[in-house]
Amino acid sequence: MTSEQFRAYGHQLVDWVADYWDRLPALPVRPEVRPGSIAETLPAAPPEQGEPFPRMLADLDRVVTPNLTHWQHPAFFGYFPANTSGPSVLGDLVSAGLGVQGMLWSTSPACTEVETVMLDWLAQLLDLPAAFRAGGPGGGVIQDSASSANLVATLAALHRASGGAWRESGVDGRFTVYTSTEGHSSIEKAVRIAGLGARALRLVEVDDDLAMRPDDLRARIAADRAAGAVPALVVATIGTTSTTAVDPLPAIGPICREYGVWLHVDAAYAGAAAVCPELRDTHAGLEYADSYCFDPHKWLLTGFDCDAFFVADRAGLVDALTVLPEYLRDAASGVIDYRDWQVPLGRRFRALKLWFVLRWYGAEGLRAHVRTAVAAAARFADLVRDDGRFEVVAPHPFSLVCFRLRASDETNQELLRRINATGRAFLTHTRVRGRYVLRLAVGAPATGPEHVVATWRLIQELAGELS
Amino acid sequence: MTSEQFRAYGHQLVDWVADYWDRLPALPVRPEVRPGSIAETLPAAPPEQGEPFPRMLADLDRVVTPNLTHWQHPAFFGYFPANTSGPSVLGDLVSAGLGVQGMLWSTSPACTEVETVMLDWLAQLLDLPAAFRAGGPGGGVIQDSASSANLVATLAALHRASGGAWRESGVDGRFTVYTSTEGHSSIEKAVRIAGLGARALRLVEVDDDLAMRPDDLRARIAADRAAGAVPALVVATIGTTSTTAVDPLPAIGPICREYGVWLHVDAAYAGAAAVCPELRDTHAGLEYADSYCFDPHKWLLTGFDCDAFFVADRAGLVDALTVLPEYLRDAASGVIDYRDWQVPLGRRFRALKLWFVLRWYGAEGLRAHVRTAVAAAARFADLVRDDGRFEVVAPHPFSLVCFRLRASDETNQELLRRINATGRAFLTHTRVRGRYVLRLAVGAPATGPEHVVATWRLIQELAGELS
Repeated sequence: MTSEQFRAYGHQLVDWVADYWDRLPALPVRPEVRPGSIAETLPAAPPEQGEPFPRMLADLDRVVTPNLTHWQHPAFFGYFPANTSGPSVLGDLVSAGLGVQGMLWSTSPACTEVETVMLDWLAQLLDLPAAFRAGGPGGGVIQDSASSANLVATLAALHRASGGAWRESGVDGRFTVYTSTEGHSSIEKAVRIAGLGARALRLVEVDDDLAMRPDDLRARIAADRAAGAVPALVVATIGTTSTTAVDPLPAIGPICREYGVWLHVDAAYAGAAAVCPELRDTHAGLEYADSYCFDPHKWLLTGFDCDAFFVADRAGLVDALTVLPEYLRDAASGVIDYRDWQVPLGRRFRALKLWFVLRWYGAEGLRAHVRTAVAAAARFADLVRDDGRFEVVAPHPFSLVCFRLRASDETNQELLRRINATGRAFLTHTRVRGRYVLRLAVGAPATGPEHVVATWRLIQELAGELS
Repeated sequence: MTSEQFRAYGHQLVDWVADYWDRLPALPVRPEVRPGSIAETLPAAPPEQGEPFPRMLADLDRVVTPNLTHWQHPAFFGYFPANTSGPSVLGDLVSAGLGVQGMLWSTSPACTEVETVMLDWLAQLLDLPAAFRAGGPGGGVIQDSASSANLVATLAALHRASGGAWRESGVDGRFTVYTSTEGHSSIEKAVRIAGLGARALRLVEVDDDLAMRPDDLRARIAADRAAGAVPALVVATIGTTSTTAVDPLPAIGPICREYGVWLHVDAAYAGAAAVCPELRDTHAGLEYADSYCFDPHKWLLTGFDCDAFFVADRAGLVDALTVLPEYLRDAASGVIDYRDWQVPLGRRFRALKLWFVLRWYGAEGLRAHVRTAVAAAARFADLVRDDGRFEVVAPHPFSLVCFRLRASDETNQELLRRINATGRAFLTHTRVRGRYVLRLAVGAPATGPEHVVATWRLIQELAGELS
């Protein structure tokens, strides 16, 4: 592709993306698609000769957009949001164009140093404990997702709990890991990947607000210790996936200290809330944490993938993950080689999109984004409470509201099915205390209070048909 | 950012990328940078108010480009190449703009189905065994890198070797893993992450061509089995990182079958060569493999990250990795949920860049790209052999040439330092049979024979200064 072609097609695609965003509100959030029907429209074999670019452009509208669940749609309220934004896309474009690989400092110094500074900026924006800043013994790194951050934290914890012997001798059935019954599925997956098996995972009971009960955590750690186990890791959550419950770090932290257990805090979604001082009480007690992660790609206007992972002791993390063959040895010393902070070896220049986002919006713009979503969710919860047919089933400290019809699980399931079938909104579900519950998560940049109100009117209307 | 702003800035950035590529040949491949000097030029704190976009654009030229190792430079011969191309960057731009998340089929059907078809296209382009196609019990998936593919293969192997008990009970010190002394560092890392510890890793001896010795593999497996161990995984390599040695699958495969050991083939770099029929003998015996991976982001014109990972039995892989909480349950059945084929939960629409690349170049264009690099490497090797001061130290079946001055390790190390200090070429090193060796890897799209010849003249000149 010549330079001239790249410029011409590139301009067309930039406009295509802008057009896509412009017409998003008119598209169904989730289309009706029969499994296999998209693959059928594609040739079974790759082309022998190259094709002209306009054909690919045309296929975007023919094959791709009609068959997407539109995560950037203003009425996408499912899962947690996966925000992106103009400056994020543009930063990513530069990253793709540069095509550098930041596994070592020396393989692209700017890739590493801009990332270190951006993670420090994030630490300041969220007012994280000083231990997580790169100026001291800690620091931050971009992981692809909180799943990977939780895995890396698990490995660092095993390394510490074994006094380093884990690197040579592996795990041996003694290590135990703790999270609440509401902890994310990626914790179970990390425990499995690390070779501990599900039997090593302790699911700590939760209180009425679905937050981890410190007394139960202490009892389990003490019992395991007494039985000869080695408690290695506690994963506490700020903003659980089901209901955004907040585990009480001020009570959990001292227990971890007392027993010498690594405390990792998973704030994948809710961490972004800490850009607002009035929401920072959710992060109280974070100074006890050995590691912490949150996803700018969820609620901070940065495209997937961008998880920010912080450790208080980077030397321990690097010691756990480093492998140094001859072909990767390099003269530069005293520098950060992010290869040793993650599972993969290679890495893209993901800090660029973060740099563009943080500068374009500034701290004020990021706070405004979070506040808009929190206010819209509060408005929605008020509307739910005003309708006697419904109930809000859990606290909503952030921008997720869990609610249900005062009816059977089957009726609630059918309500969700009908909402999503309209294509006018997309919600997902969970179970709270065994009951089927609908989740409405606000966070897409295009979502305003009007979309939340319109969705509520739709839900009311469909609920009427069901009674 | 408004739609109009995005269009205007987007066009500017597309042009910026094109300009960057146009001026790349004139830039030093690797600049002289003092560690910390880039971070010093950035503000210590994030801005309170948003900044105008032109400032970010200006900082690309001030902060970023002067401090990069330019992986797309025509004289970048280090490590293995990490190619990108115009169509790859454009596909990635669409992916970033759509901002969808393909963890489940239902969370964006096109994201999953286009990926499945693209992996089938790759399987055909490389003429992989039919077992790896999605039409049967196997199939392919995009991982971020071969490191992650090697880890996922390790987990699937442990699951199978334990009869599924591993999910519940973890590892127990009995499992063993085999690769050659030339296997990639990510295998050691995968073994560590999986909780096996370095003591579980067996480094099989290599022959004179640095390929795995099947007799030694068999002896080690048999001895381990006799000692009560459970041989779980053999990782064979097509194109080792040091010298691109090819392990003999036709001999290794039957041993794995005989002992019921999972055979994973890591062709991270050299897999792309199989687009050319005349280079496919390197893949002989691949029908024995349970899994296989190669990186289109290395040598197939696709930007990082894009590793293609194939399994012969997708059910076993999914069973090893699935975790299903209520909030991820979804009605669609009989579909592929790629979340269960990888470590992280979330995933970008990476198949788009592959789709654009395979269509823009076509099979013919991809073959031409590989052949250009192989021919340039052969030309370089001939030049080295024609100069009595030098020697080629290993076979070069692909586009990597390992060579050295017939002099001390220190002299070779100094030669490499001087080459890279010129900024006119960038090479890396390895050790072969204990000796310090220079590596020249060809593969950047902009690299032609003339760059290889010019680099050889530079090397000769600098060698002259050293004698």
